[in-house]
Amino acid sequence: MNNFTDKPTCNCGVFGIIGHDNASLPTYYALHALQHRGQEAAGIISCDKNEKGKTIFKRYKSFGLVSDIFAQKDIFSDKLTGTMAVGHNRYSTAGSSDARKNIQPFTVNYRMGNLAIAHNGNLTNARAIRKDLIEEGSIFQTTSDTEVILHLIAKSKLDNHVDQVRDALKKIEGSYSLIIMTDDKIIAARDPHGFRPLTLGKLNGSFIATSETCALDINLAKEIREVEPGELVVLDQNTITTGDIKSYRIHENNSPSKHCVFEFIYFSRPDSRIFGSNVDKIRRKLGKVLAEHHPVEDPDGKKVVVISVPDSSNTAALGYQNQLIKMGIDSRFEIGLIRSHYVGRTFILPGQTKRDIGVRIKFNIVRGVLENRTVVLVDDSIVRGTTSRQLVKLLKEANPKSIHIRISSPPILNPCHYGMDFPSKEELIANRFGNNIGEIESFLGVDSLRYMTEDELLSAMIDHDREHFCTACFTGKYPIPIHTAYNKEELDD
Amino acid sequence: MNNFTDKPTCNCGVFGIIGHDNASLPTYYALHALQHRGQEAAGIISCDKNEKGKTIFKRYKSFGLVSDIFAQKDIFSDKLTGTMAVGHNRYSTAGSSDARKNIQPFTVNYRMGNLAIAHNGNLTNARAIRKDLIEEGSIFQTTSDTEVILHLIAKSKLDNHVDQVRDALKKIEGSYSLIIMTDDKIIAARDPHGFRPLTLGKLNGSFIATSETCALDINLAKEIREVEPGELVVLDQNTITTGDIKSYRIHENNSPSKHCVFEFIYFSRPDSRIFGSNVDKIRRKLGKVLAEHHPVEDPDGKKVVVISVPDSSNTAALGYQNQLIKMGIDSRFEIGLIRSHYVGRTFILPGQTKRDIGVRIKFNIVRGVLENRTVVLVDDSIVRGTTSRQLVKLLKEANPKSIHIRISSPPILNPCHYGMDFPSKEELIANRFGNNIGEIESFLGVDSLRYMTEDELLSAMIDHDREHFCTACFTGKYPIPIHTAYNKEELDD
Amino acid sequence: MNNFTDKPTCNCGVFGIIGHDNASLPTYYALHALQHRGQEAAGIISCDKNEKGKTIFKRYKSFGLVSDIFAQKDIFSDKLTGTMAVGHNRYSTAGSSDARKNIQPFTVNYRMGNLAIAHNGNLTNARAIRKDLIEEGSIFQTTSDTEVILHLIAKSKLDNHVDQVRDALKKIEGSYSLIIMTDDKIIAARDPHGFRPLTLGKLNGSFIATSETCALDINLAKEIREVEPGELVVLDQNTITTGDIKSYRIHENNSPSKHCVFEFIYFSRPDSRIFGSNVDKIRRKLGKVLAEHHPVEDPDGKKVVVISVPDSSNTAALGYQNQLIKMGIDSRFEIGLIRSHYVGRTFILPGQTKRDIGVRIKFNIVRGVLENRTVVLVDDSIVRGTTSRQLVKLLKEANPKSIHIRISSPPILNPCHYGMDFPSKEELIANRFGNNIGEIESFLGVDSLRYMTEDELLSAMIDHDREHFCTACFTGKYPIPIHTAYNKEELDD
Amino acid sequence: MNNFTDKPTCNCGVFGIIGHDNASLPTYYALHALQHRGQEAAGIISCDKNEKGKTIFKRYKSFGLVSDIFAQKDIFSDKLTGTMAVGHNRYSTAGSSDARKNIQPFTVNYRMGNLAIAHNGNLTNARAIRKDLIEEGSIFQTTSDTEVILHLIAKSKLDNHVDQVRDALKKIEGSYSLIIMTDDKIIAARDPHGFRPLTLGKLNGSFIATSETCALDINLAKEIREVEPGELVVLDQNTITTGDIKSYRIHENNSPSKHCVFEFIYFSRPDSRIFGSNVDKIRRKLGKVLAEHHPVEDPDGKKVVVISVPDSSNTAALGYQNQLIKMGIDSRFEIGLIRSHYVGRTFILPGQTKRDIGVRIKFNIVRGVLENRTVVLVDDSIVRGTTSRQLVKLLKEANPKSIHIRISSPPILNPCHYGMDFPSKEELIANRFGNNIGEIESFLGVDSLRYMTEDELLSAMIDHDREHFCTACFTGKYPIPIHTAYNKEELDD
Repeated sequence: MNNFTDKPTCNCGVFGIIGHDNASLPTYYALHALQHRGQEAAGIISCDKNEKGKTIFKRYKSFGLVSDIFAQKDIFSDKLTGTMAVGHNRYSTAGSSDARKNIQPFTVNYRMGNLAIAHNGNLTNARAIRKDLIEEGSIFQTTSDTEVILHLIAKSKLDNHVDQVRDALKKIEGSYSLIIMTDDKIIAARDPHGFRPLTLGKLNGSFIATSETCALDINLAKEIREVEPGELVVLDQNTITTGDIKSYRIHENNSPSKHCVFEFIYFSRPDSRIFGSNVDKIRRKLGKVLAEHHPVEDPDGKKVVVISVPDSSNTAALGYQNQLIKMGIDSRFEIGLIRSHYVGRTFILPGQTKRDIGVRIKFNIVRGVLENRTVVLVDDSIVRGTTSRQLVKLLKEANPKSIHIRISSPPILNPCHYGMDFPSKEELIANRFGNNIGEIESFLGVDSLRYMTEDELLSAMIDHDREHFCTACFTGKYPIPIHTAYNKEELDD
Repeated sequence: MNNFTDKPTCNCGVFGIIGHDNASLPTYYALHALQHRGQEAAGIISCDKNEKGKTIFKRYKSFGLVSDIFAQKDIFSDKLTGTMAVGHNRYSTAGSSDARKNIQPFTVNYRMGNLAIAHNGNLTNARAIRKDLIEEGSIFQTTSDTEVILHLIAKSKLDNHVDQVRDALKKIEGSYSLIIMTDDKIIAARDPHGFRPLTLGKLNGSFIATSETCALDINLAKEIREVEPGELVVLDQNTITTGDIKSYRIHENNSPSKHCVFEFIYFSRPDSRIFGSNVDKIRRKLGKVLAEHHPVEDPDGKKVVVISVPDSSNTAALGYQNQLIKMGIDSRFEIGLIRSHYVGRTFILPGQTKRDIGVRIKFNIVRGVLENRTVVLVDDSIVRGTTSRQLVKLLKEANPKSIHIRISSPPILNPCHYGMDFPSKEELIANRFGNNIGEIESFLGVDSLRYMTEDELLSAMIDHDREHFCTACFTGKYPIPIHTAYNKEELDD
Repeated sequence: MNNFTDKPTCNCGVFGIIGHDNASLPTYYALHALQHRGQEAAGIISCDKNEKGKTIFKRYKSFGLVSDIFAQKDIFSDKLTGTMAVGHNRYSTAGSSDARKNIQPFTVNYRMGNLAIAHNGNLTNARAIRKDLIEEGSIFQTTSDTEVILHLIAKSKLDNHVDQVRDALKKIEGSYSLIIMTDDKIIAARDPHGFRPLTLGKLNGSFIATSETCALDINLAKEIREVEPGELVVLDQNTITTGDIKSYRIHENNSPSKHCVFEFIYFSRPDSRIFGSNVDKIRRKLGKVLAEHHPVEDPDGKKVVVISVPDSSNTAALGYQNQLIKMGIDSRFEIGLIRSHYVGRTFILPGQTKRDIGVRIKFNIVRGVLENRTVVLVDDSIVRGTTSRQLVKLLKEANPKSIHIRISSPPILNPCHYGMDFPSKEELIANRFGNNIGEIESFLGVDSLRYMTEDELLSAMIDHDREHFCTACFTGKYPIPIHTAYNKEELDD
Repeated sequence: MNNFTDKPTCNCGVFGIIGHDNASLPTYYALHALQHRGQEAAGIISCDKNEKGKTIFKRYKSFGLVSDIFAQKDIFSDKLTGTMAVGHNRYSTAGSSDARKNIQPFTVNYRMGNLAIAHNGNLTNARAIRKDLIEEGSIFQTTSDTEVILHLIAKSKLDNHVDQVRDALKKIEGSYSLIIMTDDKIIAARDPHGFRPLTLGKLNGSFIATSETCALDINLAKEIREVEPGELVVLDQNTITTGDIKSYRIHENNSPSKHCVFEFIYFSRPDSRIFGSNVDKIRRKLGKVLAEHHPVEDPDGKKVVVISVPDSSNTAALGYQNQLIKMGIDSRFEIGLIRSHYVGRTFILPGQTKRDIGVRIKFNIVRGVLENRTVVLVDDSIVRGTTSRQLVKLLKEANPKSIHIRISSPPILNPCHYGMDFPSKEELIANRFGNNIGEIESFLGVDSLRYMTEDELLSAMIDHDREHFCTACFTGKYPIPIHTAYNKEELDD
């Protein structure tokens, strides 16, 4: 699969709701709003009671986009009934031979009843725990880290849901924004560093925990507050009655926040609030800082044309161009590339000869605005660089005077262990060319390329302590030591 | 779903093979041959090595008939490669909300590597064990008894596959013909009473364990011998090299054989050998004994017409008619009912008014052979009686002189706890009418109805000790005491 | 595709009904009953009025079996409403690149409104007429003969439906049993030789025309009479009101009846009445005559076992065995071959090595009844002989004393131009071996093979003048001269 | 279906190519590029020779998007081989009961061989001609105007393809950009008024005719020139050899050009050249003229925020904002609405209560750029106004100071008879409120709404004679008199 994007793959979206007449319905809308966090598969588990008053968990999970999976109206009223529900969007992973079992939310039976779990993140000690559990006789059905959490909960000797979950979470390391549904409550928990976002909301009488505020907005729900790093909250009948949200610390000691800076750069939706800030505002600031340090001027004093790769870098490009104006550089934001609404993530490319036809099907250029212009293409990141190179080739057909790429983040040099899915280290363009900007410029075929520095990047994180971000993919400084035994590959079957 | 049959649902077919170049291929053919044992779903797991030499289990499972599930040629050469494989046909169960997870063979990881399991049978103490396991912190992914066995194997403290499996099997009660695949061997095991058939075969250099010999025949494999009741056998590299099949007893003490007599009456394929006998031969003997005790004569000395419900009662009907001749009763075997080849198990019946259209679509009558005749319809069993009643109505359109039903088994009065799926006790026709033959005759609209007695039934089990059969569905005498807590229903989710 | 049958392909089934509340429903049942006449595709056109009172034709056609095509309950009540309907089952043809357009019934608009047409048969002068029409400026959308009829109707200068249809039919030669639906009537017509069957029926207040009586029986409709060769009948509002069926002669002069004898031998369903006779009765008579002239005895005076290829030759085999008894030859009818209910027309055969696995999947043998026996396999016809050969090989695994094939028809040596679809002349087994029985016996691997002679065949046509049958496929004597220009192949696109 | 757009439906895209090794491949890419002209269905017909050297037309047509229809790589190399091909994208029409037949290109046989036809446009005298043809005995298979053209070609007494096509086109009125493929040539023709675009291109040795230049660009083909209004051109072997394109006039007299102005306003892709101009350039000019006559200022002298409805009005919005700046009005172009890439044209909306959830799934707002701002939403047209109203409601959630809609075209008051598909006259928002802007503002919930006048609109058609456009949908002045008998509705079945 070639999805003609030069971005890291996103890292799942989660949603849970309690106290709604038909809880799967706002969950479905939320999964639409969170679709950008995962496009490979999605699932909803609702909790209802059968005619004998016994709690039952109802499931609907499949591969594909939300609009394709839930394509029949009666799914919600017939199959996914009940007043609690949890939903999950999964990102795309390399084809495991039986990946269907890995579609979340997972559901199991254990001594305290049913459990459903939806997880955004990545555990760094999952392999070691898995090994121990297996030694003790546990059997694993999936290759997912998330199953480890389920086993730890079930193994806990403690006698209530909350203590069992805390017991389990104390043992795991890495990143997690979790929604757990039991027979009578929703538990939401976030790792001590707060790598991934997780927020709480309220929709009339029902309560919600979810990845981003856009999943609240689509439901006209109100944001309450974020789940704090290291916090576990409980949404139950008492919450519905009194509005009170019980809160627990997972660990006794606090850890420093280490929010994934890529959530601001690329992952989250621009209309969301995460980590306490509007994504759009930060992204515009990134463009502004990028322009301050890496402006482009036309050699003949003509108007510079600033374009984006729609739609992810629109905001940064607008911020960039706005700053150019402030700096006295004559410039205009233009729609130079148009992205097709009609092609999904995949389409076939039967002819081998034309390697760049894929980019042509997905994007088209507007010649008039590019011809004879000094063009700045603002993008948020480059991973492999292959699609960027094809886009540059496409832009050149419009005969621009010159093409300059400005990236609103530093070069990506290292793998992420907290939930982002990059290609192998060798495939990262910055590594391929030894982080030599000149060589990357040649490869991409542009007149100039500039990245932000880490310092510039963090200076755009307004209203945030710059220590509160994880920048490991740029710097290699991992907030949590990575176990040498850690090797996801071997688990795949 | 109405499948227009008045039979108990069959109880799964299993197949395992080791030492074959493309082991999934004979497994696929075997599943075709075993299709009569389960039509709801099927699956194959093959065992191959990846490029690093690591063992991997490959899966392909789905709902539907074997010919529909495995409808692409490259499944076997591309997806299900490897020299070991295990396959399973599942019978139809009432629609659980997430039944997909319940399709066998199941696969898991545990401390000794991969396990795949295919199970024919029903465990009578599964609920109790499941409860204990859950108390200890185990989590369950399916509602299937079979998962209990996997947990028991993984929990075993013993240090090799065979001991672990024996350890697990010692704890379970009920019926099981099991095929277990590990990373390097096939283990086949059969419960101490030998309720369900399980046999061993040889195909050139590869070794097979499977439910019925018809799965050997389709592969041109040779039968070696049955797996004995209470026996566990191992097929491994050593077996391939030396031909030696290691054998173990599951329990220290032997139990009496209690073969399911319904395997002879209806379940198994007539061309199979099970429990040491040709099914066809026993079935013909059943017809013979039925005729001896329950003959039909024409009141005017005319030729009696003997017909079957194709195809299951063909052999019994032939045996019945043959015996009539021997008894000097002028008679002829005729094809009075023809079954459509073109309709599968289900088809829609949009018009509510015509209740018997389903039977008309599935069967048609040959008027010429029935008109003005004394007709004997030989059938192997009646469960609900609704389809039989519709068939009788259909036959009457040919204006027979009279219609007589002869059943080559006794009235079914009790549930089976060892793998057969009957409707609820109240729905069984013999119970509905208090086992009053006159009332059942009226309901069915026939001139006479006769069942075999248990004694007559067992007298047809030539070459067998009549104590060696389970007849609990007729007599209520269960070979294994049924736990009062036993209640499958509650487990469904 | 290998459908593991050694028979000519059948030649379509047609059905039309007027005066029924939901006319598509009995049409659907009828297509089930007529499924044996065509398994490749099916369609129903119903006639309803829209809210403005304007007549509209509603369509539902697709490839596949009736049960698969019409798999949603609401098709009949929602999509195929109306009080008139016409249906068609199509037989399998070699894969034309756009065969979908060729699925009948066809519908068109012409100056007198809508027309739907369903045709069973084959026109021998279609190419010539088509050529003329095209010269005059007509455009053709399909490669089907049937479209020619539509053009001729539309071109007619006459001013009412009946005259237009007669005008058209006067110009065509060959075989046709036609159902035509206009906006207000059903017209049924049959070619002057009556090659294919066509009959009239009555279901409460509604009137029916259809290929075989089995399509009446499934609807509990009563047979009225056959449409006579060369007759055109009209079923309209007047028919519904008065019961009167208007009848017209297509041509002024009568032609001799030339019924397709293969309809009795193999095509029609045994429970149907066609050409005035019960199919089952004739088929039994064929078996009887076959035994009279070609009996088989056991050399040691043991019982001879007579078996059929289920289900088509069941009746002939019963007739054969019955006659053996009358002739004093000790014999028994047995079920020696069992045909799987679970495989449809096609299934994949991934392993190249085992050429006969297909036959093994479709059929299984019952060893007990064959072992050490002189076995007679009665079949109705052999076309290519390849499947027969594989069946013989399969039977031999049961170690019979000897195998004798008896065919209840003569050797097929010539193509049919009136609707049957044989393979090419060279592929017919009788031609391949120059009609040398000894060589065919060797090829099939049997101890003896006997066909009926034409004379014997016709002697079985009780109550019929033997001149009234077409036997061209055996004798080459075509009732209608075949145009040299006739060449179906070239029309395919 | 609610596709959450307030636009007229577009009117088909056509493409034909000759002289390419695998002609269906550039046709496939072209259909991707022309997807905006029709999303309901698509088809490709290729022309190849069979093993006997006979020309055959190969087809692949279906409902859905291009990427879904042609989702298998081997379609082009296996099924759609040949050196000529014609393709068609169809726009969405109300669900006719048998619409499949209406998917273009159509193919037929007539006396001169095969014909395939792809048509963009609408014939205004089709009903009358159809009626005449039917009177003469022609039969129609579809309800499409395009079939009329095929009949006229087939009926022509002239003796070569070109004369026959001209003969046919002389009889028809209305709009058409046609691609016709015969066994040896591509004929492209455009109606005398040139309502719809049609252009010629060259790709190495092959020649192309297609709707828009974007279909050339995606194939890296060069534009040659437009097919002129009233011109018929022939692309054949001679063209390939010599590069010469034979040209013919359809009618003897010329007619004035009447290009559809909506092609510039909304239909065509911004990167295309049509009618001799860059669409993007005209669209930007429309925005500029709109700003000149209908500017918006902030009452407090603050910056005005200009946003578009992505992606169709992006260019007009940029032009509008640019002009505001020139006029000294402080303003900024912003991405205020983001359109989801993940939802296609349809998705289910199970909850009845939330009427505007559809708009929320398809669009999300960026609050930060709208809050407390005077917002101008530039759109190209409003049809029903219902989606616009929902968008306004959505924008208001960001608490803008005020919302002003500016439309880069006049109010739509009349139906189009030349290929655009509007809702019924009564549903057009401008008619609903009697063209009273105040009432429309209230309905939409905006602070102000302004349309362009016809005069303003035409002043933006730079380099064009303003008489050369059809503006009937705004003015009711139809270039071709509409027959009173004209009534598409009645033809639907």
